[in-house]
Amino acid sequence: MNLLDNINAPQDVQALSAADLPRLAQEVRDAILETVSKNGGHLASNLGAVELTIALLRVFTPPADRVVWDVGHQAYTWKLLTGRRGRFHTLRQKDGISGFVKPNESPCDAFIAGHAGTALSAALGMAAARDGGGGHVIAVIGDASITNGISLEALNNLEDAGGKVIVILNDNEMSIARNVGTFSRRLGRMLTSVRYNRIKAAAEAAGHRLHMTALRGVYHRIEQAVKSLWLRNAFFEEFGLRYIGPIDGHDFTALENAILSARDDKRSVLVHVATQKGRGFKPAERTPSQWHGVGAFDLGAPDTKADTPASHPRVTYSQVMGEALTALAERDARITAITAAMCAGTGLEPFARRHPERFHDVGICEAHAAVFAAGLAASGRRPVFAVYSTFLQRAIDCVMHDICLQNLPVVLCIDRAGVVGSDGPTHHGIYDIPMLRCLPNLTIMQPADNAELAAMLTAALAHDAPAAIRYPREPSEIRNEELGIRNESQNHPIPNSCALPILIGKAQVRLAPPHGNAIWIWALGDMLPLAAQVAERLSARGEAVGIVNARFIKPLDTALLSEQATDGAKAFITLENGAVTGGFGSAVREALSGTGVPVHTFGWPDRFMPQGTLAQLLEDAGLTAERIGMGGYV
Amino acid sequence: MNLLDNINAPQDVQALSAADLPRLAQEVRDAILETVSKNGGHLASNLGAVELTIALLRVFTPPADRVVWDVGHQAYTWKLLTGRRGRFHTLRQKDGISGFVKPNESPCDAFIAGHAGTALSAALGMAAARDGGGGHVIAVIGDASITNGISLEALNNLEDAGGKVIVILNDNEMSIARNVGTFSRRLGRMLTSVRYNRIKAAAEAAGHRLHMTALRGVYHRIEQAVKSLWLRNAFFEEFGLRYIGPIDGHDFTALENAILSARDDKRSVLVHVATQKGRGFKPAERTPSQWHGVGAFDLGAPDTKADTPASHPRVTYSQVMGEALTALAERDARITAITAAMCAGTGLEPFARRHPERFHDVGICEAHAAVFAAGLAASGRRPVFAVYSTFLQRAIDCVMHDICLQNLPVVLCIDRAGVVGSDGPTHHGIYDIPMLRCLPNLTIMQPADNAELAAMLTAALAHDAPAAIRYPREPSEIRNEELGIRNESQNHPIPNSCALPILIGKAQVRLAPPHGNAIWIWALGDMLPLAAQVAERLSARGEAVGIVNARFIKPLDTALLSEQATDGAKAFITLENGAVTGGFGSAVREALSGTGVPVHTFGWPDRFMPQGTLAQLLEDAGLTAERIGMGGYV
Repeated sequence: MNLLDNINAPQDVQALSAADLPRLAQEVRDAILETVSKNGGHLASNLGAVELTIALLRVFTPPADRVVWDVGHQAYTWKLLTGRRGRFHTLRQKDGISGFVKPNESPCDAFIAGHAGTALSAALGMAAARDGGGGHVIAVIGDASITNGISLEALNNLEDAGGKVIVILNDNEMSIARNVGTFSRRLGRMLTSVRYNRIKAAAEAAGHRLHMTALRGVYHRIEQAVKSLWLRNAFFEEFGLRYIGPIDGHDFTALENAILSARDDKRSVLVHVATQKGRGFKPAERTPSQWHGVGAFDLGAPDTKADTPASHPRVTYSQVMGEALTALAERDARITAITAAMCAGTGLEPFARRHPERFHDVGICEAHAAVFAAGLAASGRRPVFAVYSTFLQRAIDCVMHDICLQNLPVVLCIDRAGVVGSDGPTHHGIYDIPMLRCLPNLTIMQPADNAELAAMLTAALAHDAPAAIRYPREPSEIRNEELGIRNESQNHPIPNSCALPILIGKAQVRLAPPHGNAIWIWALGDMLPLAAQVAERLSARGEAVGIVNARFIKPLDTALLSEQATDGAKAFITLENGAVTGGFGSAVREALSGTGVPVHTFGWPDRFMPQGTLAQLLEDAGLTAERIGMGGYV
Repeated sequence: MNLLDNINAPQDVQALSAADLPRLAQEVRDAILETVSKNGGHLASNLGAVELTIALLRVFTPPADRVVWDVGHQAYTWKLLTGRRGRFHTLRQKDGISGFVKPNESPCDAFIAGHAGTALSAALGMAAARDGGGGHVIAVIGDASITNGISLEALNNLEDAGGKVIVILNDNEMSIARNVGTFSRRLGRMLTSVRYNRIKAAAEAAGHRLHMTALRGVYHRIEQAVKSLWLRNAFFEEFGLRYIGPIDGHDFTALENAILSARDDKRSVLVHVATQKGRGFKPAERTPSQWHGVGAFDLGAPDTKADTPASHPRVTYSQVMGEALTALAERDARITAITAAMCAGTGLEPFARRHPERFHDVGICEAHAAVFAAGLAASGRRPVFAVYSTFLQRAIDCVMHDICLQNLPVVLCIDRAGVVGSDGPTHHGIYDIPMLRCLPNLTIMQPADNAELAAMLTAALAHDAPAAIRYPREPSEIRNEELGIRNESQNHPIPNSCALPILIGKAQVRLAPPHGNAIWIWALGDMLPLAAQVAERLSARGEAVGIVNARFIKPLDTALLSEQATDGAKAFITLENGAVTGGFGSAVREALSGTGVPVHTFGWPDRFMPQGTLAQLLEDAGLTAERIGMGGYV
C-alpha cells in the first residue's frame, strides 16, 4: 500500500515511523515527477526539498506553526503532505493548485510567495505579532534569495524586530556555482565542511589514515572548513542568529535533530541545510539548471525534453532580444547587458558567452541592477537591463530616481509583460504600463513581432534617454524562418529586422478604413491579432474599421490620434495585454480628451488574474473577438 | 582675507597649505550656517562632513575623479568648494542651488542623490564602465544608508561587478544611537576603538596609567575594540574590501593619510570615518537630531528655533496622523506602527513613546517595512506603515505582491504626497496615485483637512483590506483649535474628528450648483481651496459650478459621477497635487467614459518639477485659479 495515500494532514506525517520516511520520500518524488511531466512546473528545486519538507512537518504542525516559504516554487512536497494530494494533478492549471505557496489555497500556506526575498521580513512580522503564545515561525530561504536586498534588510532588523524566528537556509549545492556575490561564495565555503565530512567518512571506512599522501589536499580543506566554521558562526551570531549546520539535507536523522534543536532554543536560529537540486531524478541531478522550470516531458524518455530553441517552432521575444543585442554589441562597445539572476529566461545567454566582460548577473537584486545600470550609463556605457515585468516592480523607484530623473540612456527590456499563464498572479506582468508611464523622460514601446523588437532595440540604443521595451512571454506569430534570425553559431549576424525604421513616438497604420467615419482600433503588440479578429467582426456588421499598431505607449502618437479624430472617427478601441486601469488605453483616452470621440479600453480588469493559459484568461475577462466584436458599446 | 573667497575649483583646495585647512573649515562652517539660517536646509550632517569633504578634495579632483554622495544632503561643503560658492545663498530656493547633489548643476556632482542607499550601486556601475584608465570612483555612504537593501545588494555584488571602488563610510557617532539594526550596532562597536583612543590619549596626557582602578572599565572596552577590529576586518574583507579605520573625521592628517592609502591601493577599500553631527555649532552638537533638517532660524539666538508643534499656528497632517493613531491604539491593541527611519517626520514620535512595544523603526528599509507589515497583518495585527510618498516607491512591488495580492489589512499613511517644496524633484511625492491605483484590492483616499485625516485613519483601520491615505506636507487650512486636537500630554484623547463618518468610496459634495447643466470640479484634498477659487471665477463668468471633495481615488465614487453626468453636467474639472499622467483625473475620465461629458484634468505635467514653494510651482505649471478659472477649455 502507498504511504502517501494516507497522508491528509501534517499529523499523518508525524505518525509515521522513522523507518518509513525514505519510502514516503520516494513516493513524493514519484508524485511530483508524474504531475510535472504532464503539467510542467518547477522540478529540480522541488526534488531537492523533499526530505527537508518532511522533516519540517515531523517537527512543526501548520497552521499553528507558520512556515513561510521564500519564492515558494519549491513547496510541491509541502502541498502533497498538507491536504492537497488529491488535487495535485491540477498543478498550474486553470482553477487548479498553484505552483507557488498560496494562503487562500490552504491555511497551511502561511504567506504568499512568488517574488524572492520576502520570507524573512514576513516571518519577522509574524514573530513580532505573536504575544508570548502562538506557534513557531519558520522562514525557509534559498541561497539565492538570501542575497536579495529585502532579505538582507530583514536580517539586519532581526534582533530589533523582536520575537524568535527559525531560518532554514535551503542551500542547493548546485546553485552556488551559478550564484553570484559574496554571500554565495561564503556559503559555498561553508559547504566544504559537509563535503569534507563525506570524504572523511569514506576515507575512514576504507581504513585509510587522513595523513596519507593521497589525501593531503583534504588537509587544506579541513583547515578551510575550520576557519569558515568560525567565521560563519561569528557572521550569523552578529545578526542575532545561532548557527546550526551545515546539515545534509537528505539525511532525515540529521535534519530532524537540527530542526528540533532550533525549535527548542529560545534564541533565533539559522539551520543551514545542504540539498541537491534534482535529487532522485538522474537527468535533473546531472543538469539541474535545465530542469529548473520545465514544460511537459516524456517521463519514459526524459532526455528528449531538450528545451532548446531548435525544438520550438517559433522563437520567443526573449531569444530575439538576446540574439539581436549580442549582434548589436559587436558594433557598439558601449553596450552592456545586465540581468538579475535571469540570464537564460531573458535570452541573454548568447550575450554572456560572446561578451562576458560586458555582461553582469548581479543576482536577485533588481533595485541594485537598475542603479548599477544608471552608473554605467553615467559613464558612457549603453546598459540594457533585461528583466521580467513583475520583477521590475522591485526597481520602480530606481527607474524614477536614478534613471529618469537623470535622463540616462538605460534600456529596460521588460520581458514577460502581460499575463504569463501557469505561473499565475505573482508573475503576471500587467502593471508596468501604469507604473512607468507617469515617469517623465521615459520612452515606452511594445513591438508587434520579433522584427519590430529587434528594430526597437536598435532604436532604443540610439536614443539618448531612458527607453523601455515591453514584450510578452508568448512568441509572436511570425516564424523563425520568415524573420531570418540565425542562431549564435553563425557569428551573430544582425537580424535584418534591425534595419526596420522605428521613429520614436510614431505609430503604424495596419489597416486603413474605407472612409473617415470609422472605428479605429489601437492595439499594443501582442494584441494585434485580436485587433484583426475584432475588425473582421465589426466590418461584418457594416462598420468601417482601421487598425493601428501603436508601437509607442509613451510618447504616444497623439498627432495620428488627433488626425483620426478630426477626420471624423466614430470611436476608438484600445487593446492591451496589461491592467486597463491607468494603462495604455488610459493614455489614449487622455490624448483624445476634448475631441468628444468615445474611447473604449480593453485590458485586464481591476482584479488579480489567476493562473491559466492566455486564451483562458482572455475568455474569462471577456477579451475575445466575439465580445469586443459585438460592438454594442460603440 | 577670506580663504573661501578664492576657492573656485578643487585645485584651489589642493593648493592650500595644510596649516590653512582648519581656517578653511571654519569659513565653510560659517558660510553653511549663514545660508541655512536664512533658507533652511540640512544642517547637522553638513557641519559634520566639512573636514571629510575638504580631505576628499585634497586627494581627488572631480569631475575626473567621481565622488558619488549617498543621500546627497551632506554635500554643502562640496558645493561651496566646487565652483558654486557664489550661488550658494540661493540654496533650496526656486532656480537656486539644490539641497542635494545634482549632476546638471555641476559636472563635479557625479550622480544624483536624494533617496538613500544608491551610491555604492552607482559607483560599481561607474567602476565597471571604466576601461583601465579613467579617474577614481568614490562612494560616500552614511551609516544609516549602508543598511538599506540596495547598499547591501551592491556590497554583495562588489567583487563580481569588477573595478576598484573606494567606499567612505561616513559614520556619525550620534546617529548610531538612533539607528537600528545589527549593522549599526556593529559599527557602534567599531567606533569604541576611536573613543578608546581619545580616552587613552587624554589619560596618558594626564600622566595616568591605564591599569588605574578608575579606568578598569576601559580595559573591557579595549578588549571589545580588539575583538571588533578583528571581526570588522574579517567582515569587510569577506566582501572584497580592505578596511581602513576608524578614522577621526575631523583630523585632517588622519583623513588625508587614510584616503591616500585607499587611493593607492589596487584593491577596493573601505575607509571608516567617524564624524560628529553638528560639529562646530554648539546647539547642533548638543541635539543633532533637532538640527538635522531645519527651517530658517536666528543665528544670533539659535535656541529660539525650537521646532515644536506649539510654535506652528497649524498642525501638520503628520502630527494629526501620529496623535490620532496613538489615541486609536489605546482602544485597539492590534494597532502597530512602522516607520522606515522617519519617526519624527511622519509624526510617530508620540506613538513610539506611548506604545513602544507596538512601534517598529526598521531603518531606511521601505521594502522590508512593507513586507514586515504584511507579516504582522497576516497574524492579526493592524499595522500602519507611515512613509513619505517618494520613499514608498521603494516598496511598490511589496505593496502589490505581499499586501494587495493577499488582501491584507495594512494601512499605508502616505505622507509628503504632492510637491514638497525646497527638497525638489527627488522628494516630490507625485507618482503614488498612478503607481498604486492600478493595484486591485487597494483603497486610496486623500483627506481635505485634519479632521478628515483622523476619520479616514479610523475608517482605514476598520476596513478589512489594504488601505492607503495620502496627504501633503503643507498643513491644511483648518486650525489647531478648531479641530480640537490636544497634544499627547493630555493622555491622547481621540480627536473628535475620528467620529466623522467616512464611507468607503463615497465622495462629498461641497458646493451644489444652481442647476444640473453645471461644471463639476472634483478636487483631491489639498486642492479644494484652489477648487473654491476656480469655482468663484467660473461663477463670475456665468457658469453653474459644483465642487466635490473626492475623498476616494479608489474606489472612486462612480455613482455620483454618473449621476452628475446624467443630470446634464456640462463638464468636469479635476484637481490633484500629483502627476496628471495616469493620476486621479485619469481615473475620473475612465469612470465618465461613454457619457460624452468632457473631463479636464489638472495636476503636475509630464516633466520633473523643480524645487520651489508650492505657490511657485503651481504658478509655473499653470495650476492657478486665474488660468483654470478662465475656462477657455470648457
